[in-house]
Amino acid sequence: MAKLTQLIDNEVFRAYATYTVIVLLKMMLMSLITAYFRITRKAFVNPEDTAVFGKGESAKKNLRTDPDVERVRRGHLNDLENIVPFLGIGLLYALSGPELSTALLHFRIFAGARIVHTFAYLIPLPQPSRGLSWAVGYTVTILMAYRVLKTALYL
Amino acid sequence: MAKLTQLIDNEVFRAYATYTVIVLLKMMLMSLITAYFRITRKAFVNPEDTAVFGKGESAKKNLRTDPDVERVRRGHLNDLENIVPFLGIGLLYALSGPELSTALLHFRIFAGARIVHTFAYLIPLPQPSRGLSWAVGYTVTILMAYRVLKTALYL
Amino acid sequence: MAKLTQLIDNEVFRAYATYTVIVLLKMMLMSLITAYFRITRKAFVNPEDTAVFGKGESAKKNLRTDPDVERVRRGHLNDLENIVPFLGIGLLYALSGPELSTALLHFRIFAGARIVHTFAYLIPLPQPSRGLSWAVGYTVTILMAYRVLKTALYL
Repeated sequence: MAKLTQLIDNEVFRAYATYTVIVLLKMMLMSLITAYFRITRKAFVNPEDTAVFGKGESAKKNLRTDPDVERVRRGHLNDLENIVPFLGIGLLYALSGPELSTALLHFRIFAGARIVHTFAYLIPLPQPSRGLSWAVGYTVTILMAYRVLKTALYL
Repeated sequence: MAKLTQLIDNEVFRAYATYTVIVLLKMMLMSLITAYFRITRKAFVNPEDTAVFGKGESAKKNLRTDPDVERVRRGHLNDLENIVPFLGIGLLYALSGPELSTALLHFRIFAGARIVHTFAYLIPLPQPSRGLSWAVGYTVTILMAYRVLKTALYL
Repeated sequence: MAKLTQLIDNEVFRAYATYTVIVLLKMMLMSLITAYFRITRKAFVNPEDTAVFGKGESAKKNLRTDPDVERVRRGHLNDLENIVPFLGIGLLYALSGPELSTALLHFRIFAGARIVHTFAYLIPLPQPSRGLSWAVGYTVTILMAYRVLKTALYL
């Protein structure tokens, strides 16, 4: 057991754990926002979900797409596409022995960029807000990937 | 080499490994179910996939969406949205030194909830079966995230 | 700090780190290809993205789906569905103490299969190129999952 807690006692690893949990919770929030818009907009995709609004024609008309629901879903998918690489590359980066201050800078900028991205997508803010916040998170991930390959490359 | 096997010898970590492999294999099964429905329903999305059913008009009519295929695909995407957070948060939780019995409880409930969710989605069972099974897995992930932040928080 | 670098000094773990970064970067490339096709095909999904092409009717007609954009997006989603299991199962496999040569074989075949899959999807190559490359990556992941369960099973 002692060996395991050594990992979580390392400050860089703790920073990785903190910011990973933050961005994953942020991503999970998208599910709740989707559910909120589906219910308030009455826009469902599964016939069994409309049953609470009655049966027959009145329920069927709730089987539709809604622009707000689709917007949240695109934000959710964009999170998946960008947070999955952070999850893997960030873990390997944290294990590659970076300076604590450098690591914190990477993690903070990534988490900040993804939070800005979500606001830019959902409000929505005029471009290039969303594009830039996406690019910042993307670039930080590339920089961490470069560090991992420089430290660990074994083809 | 010795150090590495110490990790996999830890019982909490072995439990995490076991249930992570189970839910990931379950998620991978969705690809096979999608392929099965695409072939039996003759509902493809890529023109090159219809070639085995002949060319020209007879092939073109197989380029269509099918409700059963779309249902499996939604289940698959829901898996991604929920199993990715479990993958990351569960790993950090396992490394945060929880009691074995507590950890097992979290992992078992999560895996059980996701398996019930899949049946509820594909059969489909009447609501709130799918909603509840989703909420159980979601809640377990939040509880593990809370424990990680309590143990490792480093902002 | 010493303990952490022991992990990244392990050759199997370094091989995992290398091939994971490679497949995640390949997946991230899909975002850039999507953006490239959206801009060259003028096919956007968010109203705010069309603003650079002017306002009113001329911008609205750029809110459309394009077959090439949709093809890249399907490739991207397929990457997510297959690389997420590799990320989790591959990590646990690397920690289960496999022979270096065996591990390298698994990682190389998986990465190669996913790169072939991308070319097969985007060119597109006639089937069964895409199907086979998908099946190869899928099978390698299953084999690694089997090894993890054999080594670590703790239900």
